[in-house]
Amino acid sequence: MDSIKIFAPATVANVACGFDIFGFAVDAPGDEVIVRKRSDNQIIITNITGEEGKLTYDVSKNAVTVPILKYLEQTGNTQGLEIELHKKMPLGSGLGSSSASSVAGVFAVNELLGKPLSAKELLPFSMEGERIACGSAHADNVAPALLGGFVVVRSYQPLDVFKVPTPDELYVTIVHPDIEVNTKDARHILRNEVSMKNTIAQMGNVAGMIAGLMQADYKLIASSMVDFIIEPVRAILIPEFWEVKNAALEAGALGCSISGAGPSIFAFSQGKETAEKVAIAMKNSFEKVGIHGDTYVSGINQHGPKIIG
Amino acid sequence: MDSIKIFAPATVANVACGFDIFGFAVDAPGDEVIVRKRSDNQIIITNITGEEGKLTYDVSKNAVTVPILKYLEQTGNTQGLEIELHKKMPLGSGLGSSSASSVAGVFAVNELLGKPLSAKELLPFSMEGERIACGSAHADNVAPALLGGFVVVRSYQPLDVFKVPTPDELYVTIVHPDIEVNTKDARHILRNEVSMKNTIAQMGNVAGMIAGLMQADYKLIASSMVDFIIEPVRAILIPEFWEVKNAALEAGALGCSISGAGPSIFAFSQGKETAEKVAIAMKNSFEKVGIHGDTYVSGINQHGPKIIG
Repeated sequence: MDSIKIFAPATVANVACGFDIFGFAVDAPGDEVIVRKRSDNQIIITNITGEEGKLTYDVSKNAVTVPILKYLEQTGNTQGLEIELHKKMPLGSGLGSSSASSVAGVFAVNELLGKPLSAKELLPFSMEGERIACGSAHADNVAPALLGGFVVVRSYQPLDVFKVPTPDELYVTIVHPDIEVNTKDARHILRNEVSMKNTIAQMGNVAGMIAGLMQADYKLIASSMVDFIIEPVRAILIPEFWEVKNAALEAGALGCSISGAGPSIFAFSQGKETAEKVAIAMKNSFEKVGIHGDTYVSGINQHGPKIIG
Repeated sequence: MDSIKIFAPATVANVACGFDIFGFAVDAPGDEVIVRKRSDNQIIITNITGEEGKLTYDVSKNAVTVPILKYLEQTGNTQGLEIELHKKMPLGSGLGSSSASSVAGVFAVNELLGKPLSAKELLPFSMEGERIACGSAHADNVAPALLGGFVVVRSYQPLDVFKVPTPDELYVTIVHPDIEVNTKDARHILRNEVSMKNTIAQMGNVAGMIAGLMQADYKLIASSMVDFIIEPVRAILIPEFWEVKNAALEAGALGCSISGAGPSIFAFSQGKETAEKVAIAMKNSFEKVGIHGDTYVSGINQHGPKIIG
């Protein structure tokens, strides 16, 4: 095999109550990366599309190549590679755009080199892409993009992530409004301290979410989708957030919150039909104030990256 | 039926990472309550044993009768009752002593009156016993004493508790050292704010504990039994805490932390044999500095209160 084409999915991090610890993968959107072996030992990016010229071709600074360089360094491999990155999702959307690229690249290279490492072993490399893109090596988007499913980042020191089974009828609706929120800003407005009361309430919901997902208890999932810590602060950055959230809940969603650092908003529903109704309600709510929103409806993507060519 | 005798179990609250939200019941120790119907409509306590004269016979101030009075008031029942309370566990031990009494009493009365309410419906009444005993109506001891098993108090407003299945081979070791810690003091030394970093780390462990219990993943249970928020503060109140904890871990325990507000210390182990070794190690560790400790080894009590006469 001399070349491979990989799709890696968008991801929703935080998932209401699980700031920095919960994330899950969706079926679409996502990024596509093509990696080809070269006869020399150069690593170059030959093409980037779909990002309006915003991403660099400098391999030491692009989220798709930084993990690849780390991977090759650590595995002692000198294979030359050329990389194409086709962004099929918006940057700065709160949907793990850089993670999808980071994961697609290193996953592609690992496949191309005969799969010496397991998916989980690729995680530290993919996280280096996050460090380049967001300033810190978070795992809550990268881990679900790489492993698929609903993932908990239990600990960073040592790094420990695990997957949580999710019920078949759980569908997600995402609306990505055509507005910009910088991930670094979204992090800076958060306080460094949390009240004990909110910490306890949030822990209760974290426990409820895990038990709800594992027992397919949609009522428990719904009541656990309350964020006392992050949503009240970050909602300020997203015009119409509360109206869109209310629209989702009125259309039958189990719960609704900010995807990652925003501005995308996600909702969980029981059943695809409800999730599609919720999509229309959320989109309409944004459009009332003249904001265009792209919507996506998907199950929980259990597989992560996919070989597509 | 004119009289009934009920055993209600001791409970371990907090369970390392789940401050105010996790609690589970054990097989022993526990309290016994006898309730007899009277021909008049008086509610009186006729006998209290095992508490060195520390508890009041005033029914409006005793944790066993306050829930009963609330129960009778709310259900519009004027049945006269006389109550005996036999404390079979130490007061102020961190083992939910007042909860065991509160639960035993109201559970007994409900049985005696033909079981008009479900166990879960008794929870708000039992919580009133906690309010009398500890100054606030916490549920993390009362709920497992009443429902049995490992219980999560997801939310207080509205009150929402649920049980989490636990693996068969999960055993608990408890050591109750012969020292006193006042529950109110143990609460006062806690800070009102938690760092965002510790909140996130603790949420990761809460998620890990629930998934670990539900999947019988002992390794995940072990790594999730880390408390960044409460244990570092409350450990100061318990002489030899770190030595006893280390002794438990060295003897093979999955994890070890303070039971409730202390001074009792609990450990989880996989298998009864290990739990018994851990008991000896913990007891010996206390005895090195001249502190006597009573030890208990038990599975997770899945049943809660028991009719014993």
